[in-house]
Amino acid sequence: MRILLLNGNTNGGLTETLAAEARLYAGRGTEIIAVNCTRGARFVASRAAEVIAAQAMLEVASAHFGKYDAVLIAISFDTALHALRELLPTPVVGMTEASCHAACMVGSRFGVVVPSARTASVYRERIEGYGLGGRLAGMRVVDRSAAELYEDPDSALEAVGTAARALVQEDGCESVVLAGAALVGLHRRLQAQLPVPVLDGIACGVGMLEALARLGLPKAQCGSFAVPEPATLCNIDPALARLLNAPSGEAQ
Amino acid sequence: MRILLLNGNTNGGLTETLAAEARLYAGRGTEIIAVNCTRGARFVASRAAEVIAAQAMLEVASAHFGKYDAVLIAISFDTALHALRELLPTPVVGMTEASCHAACMVGSRFGVVVPSARTASVYRERIEGYGLGGRLAGMRVVDRSAAELYEDPDSALEAVGTAARALVQEDGCESVVLAGAALVGLHRRLQAQLPVPVLDGIACGVGMLEALARLGLPKAQCGSFAVPEPATLCNIDPALARLLNAPSGEAQ
Amino acid sequence: MRILLLNGNTNGGLTETLAAEARLYAGRGTEIIAVNCTRGARFVASRAAEVIAAQAMLEVASAHFGKYDAVLIAISFDTALHALRELLPTPVVGMTEASCHAACMVGSRFGVVVPSARTASVYRERIEGYGLGGRLAGMRVVDRSAAELYEDPDSALEAVGTAARALVQEDGCESVVLAGAALVGLHRRLQAQLPVPVLDGIACGVGMLEALARLGLPKAQCGSFAVPEPATLCNIDPALARLLNAPSGEAQ
Amino acid sequence: MRILLLNGNTNGGLTETLAAEARLYAGRGTEIIAVNCTRGARFVASRAAEVIAAQAMLEVASAHFGKYDAVLIAISFDTALHALRELLPTPVVGMTEASCHAACMVGSRFGVVVPSARTASVYRERIEGYGLGGRLAGMRVVDRSAAELYEDPDSALEAVGTAARALVQEDGCESVVLAGAALVGLHRRLQAQLPVPVLDGIACGVGMLEALARLGLPKAQCGSFAVPEPATLCNIDPALARLLNAPSGEAQ
Amino acid sequence: MRILLLNGNTNGGLTETLAAEARLYAGRGTEIIAVNCTRGARFVASRAAEVIAAQAMLEVASAHFGKYDAVLIAISFDTALHALRELLPTPVVGMTEASCHAACMVGSRFGVVVPSARTASVYRERIEGYGLGGRLAGMRVVDRSAAELYEDPDSALEAVGTAARALVQEDGCESVVLAGAALVGLHRRLQAQLPVPVLDGIACGVGMLEALARLGLPKAQCGSFAVPEPATLCNIDPALARLLNAPSGEAQ
Amino acid sequence: MRILLLNGNTNGGLTETLAAEARLYAGRGTEIIAVNCTRGARFVASRAAEVIAAQAMLEVASAHFGKYDAVLIAISFDTALHALRELLPTPVVGMTEASCHAACMVGSRFGVVVPSARTASVYRERIEGYGLGGRLAGMRVVDRSAAELYEDPDSALEAVGTAARALVQEDGCESVVLAGAALVGLHRRLQAQLPVPVLDGIACGVGMLEALARLGLPKAQCGSFAVPEPATLCNIDPALARLLNAPSGEAQ
Repeated sequence: MRILLLNGNTNGGLTETLAAEARLYAGRGTEIIAVNCTRGARFVASRAAEVIAAQAMLEVASAHFGKYDAVLIAISFDTALHALRELLPTPVVGMTEASCHAACMVGSRFGVVVPSARTASVYRERIEGYGLGGRLAGMRVVDRSAAELYEDPDSALEAVGTAARALVQEDGCESVVLAGAALVGLHRRLQAQLPVPVLDGIACGVGMLEALARLGLPKAQCGSFAVPEPATLCNIDPALARLLNAPSGEAQ
Repeated sequence: MRILLLNGNTNGGLTETLAAEARLYAGRGTEIIAVNCTRGARFVASRAAEVIAAQAMLEVASAHFGKYDAVLIAISFDTALHALRELLPTPVVGMTEASCHAACMVGSRFGVVVPSARTASVYRERIEGYGLGGRLAGMRVVDRSAAELYEDPDSALEAVGTAARALVQEDGCESVVLAGAALVGLHRRLQAQLPVPVLDGIACGVGMLEALARLGLPKAQCGSFAVPEPATLCNIDPALARLLNAPSGEAQ
Repeated sequence: MRILLLNGNTNGGLTETLAAEARLYAGRGTEIIAVNCTRGARFVASRAAEVIAAQAMLEVASAHFGKYDAVLIAISFDTALHALRELLPTPVVGMTEASCHAACMVGSRFGVVVPSARTASVYRERIEGYGLGGRLAGMRVVDRSAAELYEDPDSALEAVGTAARALVQEDGCESVVLAGAALVGLHRRLQAQLPVPVLDGIACGVGMLEALARLGLPKAQCGSFAVPEPATLCNIDPALARLLNAPSGEAQ
Repeated sequence: MRILLLNGNTNGGLTETLAAEARLYAGRGTEIIAVNCTRGARFVASRAAEVIAAQAMLEVASAHFGKYDAVLIAISFDTALHALRELLPTPVVGMTEASCHAACMVGSRFGVVVPSARTASVYRERIEGYGLGGRLAGMRVVDRSAAELYEDPDSALEAVGTAARALVQEDGCESVVLAGAALVGLHRRLQAQLPVPVLDGIACGVGMLEALARLGLPKAQCGSFAVPEPATLCNIDPALARLLNAPSGEAQ
Repeated sequence: MRILLLNGNTNGGLTETLAAEARLYAGRGTEIIAVNCTRGARFVASRAAEVIAAQAMLEVASAHFGKYDAVLIAISFDTALHALRELLPTPVVGMTEASCHAACMVGSRFGVVVPSARTASVYRERIEGYGLGGRLAGMRVVDRSAAELYEDPDSALEAVGTAARALVQEDGCESVVLAGAALVGLHRRLQAQLPVPVLDGIACGVGMLEALARLGLPKAQCGSFAVPEPATLCNIDPALARLLNAPSGEAQ
Repeated sequence: MRILLLNGNTNGGLTETLAAEARLYAGRGTEIIAVNCTRGARFVASRAAEVIAAQAMLEVASAHFGKYDAVLIAISFDTALHALRELLPTPVVGMTEASCHAACMVGSRFGVVVPSARTASVYRERIEGYGLGGRLAGMRVVDRSAAELYEDPDSALEAVGTAARALVQEDGCESVVLAGAALVGLHRRLQAQLPVPVLDGIACGVGMLEALARLGLPKAQCGSFAVPEPATLCNIDPALARLLNAPSGEAQ
């Protein structure tokens, strides 16, 4: 199967790192096609930048339509998750969504390490939106920007480790999710220091997509994830327009 | 004060109707500046179309920056609400958000009439996201498209009335929120038939914005609604880019 | 419009202060009629004293019936809120109710500063009763009596400021509600020191009432806020009795 | 031990019936002292009438202070429960509170039969206030006034039976609570017809009070149920004033 | 009435201590029949050991069937509670279940002291399973094994006291539940030091069972606590098999 | 990898069917080792029978220890899930747990079809225990025993189809989970008739286990899923005893 790893940031270097990570966990026969947005923020770290990323991600997914069997949202806000799940006939999962669901299957309540106080509420809103607020025991802030964490992984490891240990020792978390695409790969180094499982969104996302793809579920024909009714649209990206009017991929 | 009534649909006629409605409820001295997106769907009725609308709304709000003191999200999904609240120094409320909070202050649990089964889950997710899920006693679907409802208000009245009465009689709702910008104005006709208060998002939104504006609250300096940190951006609308890098409105 | 500012405490000086505060935020054309109970506690600070205040408030509201268009419960427990909302044909809001709903429209999760450990549970019960428990990120206690806080505002400012900063820095609150009529007016001084919006119940309550009044909603004809059925009553205040039997205000 | 059965209604006949019921379930050595308010509604059926009953109940409990070891709130809204629990050194339980907690120990989720649509929201608010909303599977309305139900028990039995069966068959309730002091005693006749346990508040309340009294718990010295701080009071009932200033019963 | 105090641990000495405690709180006429498992762990302190205890408890309850009128689960995980409630025609309560429900009737939110970090999640899961998660304000860990606590009560008192005071002072708990059969009896010594009521599962459980027994509720005939349908069974304990096929106690 | 498919029922034929189903969805290189209990009920359909199955499952898992890399709980109550997750160093998932988490990643709220009214509460308790109660939109009962459903799949298909359609049309479910090992395989036939994805626990469980195994997470060293402390045990199965005292598999 072919997984479109869709990075909502415009940072090509990060895309490569995320793709390498995904390949580490992909099953035999799974191909990772890594792309990123070419419009928007290098590191999405605000609600406004996320809105821009969301549309850009729809455009990228439309441009590559037909070349993938599943989509991994490779930005830890899980940007555009619901819209892509609606729009596409393939499985779509978000990296944070995937790691939180996985966390529920390895411990009692989990904790989340997030990059900044500014983004903590956004992650909490997403997790509560997944209906998993009752399983969330704590959230700790590293208080560095995604860019800083990405560029100095040694320093990131120390800061993330301190936060993760507090989640275990003070909040009773039985597993720890690392949120933030910029933290990619850190979980392997952190795991050696931590007495509970550490979960990374890319690794979990690849696994969840392979599991969902194997189920061979059909596209919903009703409800909020069914193919949208044809709409009267103006001034939008042609590939995306095509998908919105002909989601089965037929020409217009 | 000047309220930017920001319609996320590209339907100019609807914008006029919404503006007229807003002016009915605006206080003396409140000016309604009504605009709509010029990119996206005529009636936003899918998650994907909403993503497109969200970015378009940020662009419109940026283009008019400096000309308004508050923003009313005049699309019933409350599209881009959080991003605009973060981006702008002024109060921002969503029409459905406003009507649900108002509903909480006039009855015990409330019900919501929504246009279609397809959108019901989206409204429910939003209301739960506002933390108001515990006050929501029921949700009923009219099962017509927004376009149909908008174009045939008499027929809409009948269908909406049937749904609303079921909310009261079967689900014990003590007030009813009409969701859907296409239903604008219908609440006045419906009220005559219904034994509980009927709430419309535009009317409620205008009132909430006037109340918030009167408080004169400062922009948050920390947390998820503070002004975003300057980001490295590419290929985005210049006005929006300016706001993202210089949210105080200074030139770059 | 005429707002009855109904102080459930028997402290006339506080009533004057609350009225002055309300007038600061009232719209042009809004008249504030400030009254307080003449029976009960000078500062209501217990569940028992609140029960006494509740009945006294019903009596005061009955005595002034016909002279107001809306009621602001100007006691931070929101005493008698539901009973007055049921009894009267006009909008009624509680000062804490109003500020919590407003807080939901300016930040993600909010915090509350309360006077004493003794009253913290009461405030929590009320906020959860409004269905807003999921939006409450923290509650901090100043640990002084309402009387002390009221009489020494400088000292109150320092103590409240410490509590409020902890809510922001440790609990991640994105706005702060000040509970306690005795803290009235303090929010303006506190705001200068705090990086997130500070909300005061009187200011919020006035705005919410103006918004609700503008909607022109009818009295519910069914459900728990409809006019009570005539009851067989004995030994109660004549004005209140009249209202309970003839809520439309007709003579008996 | 001596249980003060405190009827918040002013209906003396009902008080007798409730007392007889309580005696059926009281342990050997338990004395039931039944009193009712002499001020307020014959049948409390509104939020306003409940406020009046609450103060009257505090006065009655004060007048009899020293003559009882526990208090059973014998009005199904559990009126004044929290205030009496704060004010008095003895255990206090509400009849609906007691039956809902008991229901949790005999089945999975429970249902509640309530007299009227008008009061349904009040019962729901109370049950959610007890933190038991998650155990409540359904609520059904008989749609008769308390007075009608009380005066025609045969007809009440039929209507209550229909409601109770719907709770079992349609909502999956595994036990049924009868709310409404007017339904007192009906559970015995209903039980013969119903396949799940039927719970009555008076029977449950007596048992819970005996259990709590046996524990010999001390009065809380802090928190919201500690003895209130002495307050400056005016124009209130002398016995109640005495209790509020000297809760240990000492003279002033 | 005869209460079967069923200790899921295989520790006979503990059984004696628990029985003595139960007798302190039992009403006149209540007989305590104390038994323990003869298979499994001396102190059940893991999820796996609990599974073993659960079956052993069913066997013990079957072996003594007919000799008791109610069952008190005298192991603080409330092991096998639901299965015994289903299997037996008598009331069954768990010691932790009973103390948490009692706690709800004496304060606002309660706290729980638990022996070890390892078991904290288990207690939390149980309390949330009872639907009481919203009333739980905090949980503190003593961090000693049940065996250590049981064997050195003086040291246990100090450690438990520290934990309990933190629940009151830092988490605002208005009552404290001691979890852990090994802590039996400690609440009396602790109460002298603590400003809020301290609840012990054995004392509460005895009272709740007496209350439930007095109600004389019939066995449910439908739902998840009705007598199981006869099943095709193999290789199980004969007494238990008999009960599973003939729950009314008739011979097969 | 080798998955131990552990059927908690003693029905060997069902085990074969479940194994065949699992092999349909297993990845290349995944071996399914199917075993069932040899003690307990042919079809576990009560809480008591589940207790017996739980211990039997621990014994079977101990007997086969070392021969598998992951465990799939192949009984739809997810019996012994938490105990096995604690006891074993390998991933363990329950079939219902897996399908509910998967359901969350394909639609908004999901519904569950359950065999009997008797078991509905048990499934609900489990799903709420997973923290997924907020995602559960409805539950419908087929009202046949597991045995009947298993033996007459055509009739089962019809009954299950009716229930599933009601979940979609009346409760707005956007995906449907089939609970009940006896329904195994039915989802493929049902899918053709249903407009939303249908999820089967075996298929989902295999996928989730492969995903978790790929993550290579270490065994927790603290919290409620760490290896149990050595306990003093008596009269238990030797293989299980060995695992409880030496969970790393070393001889004692």
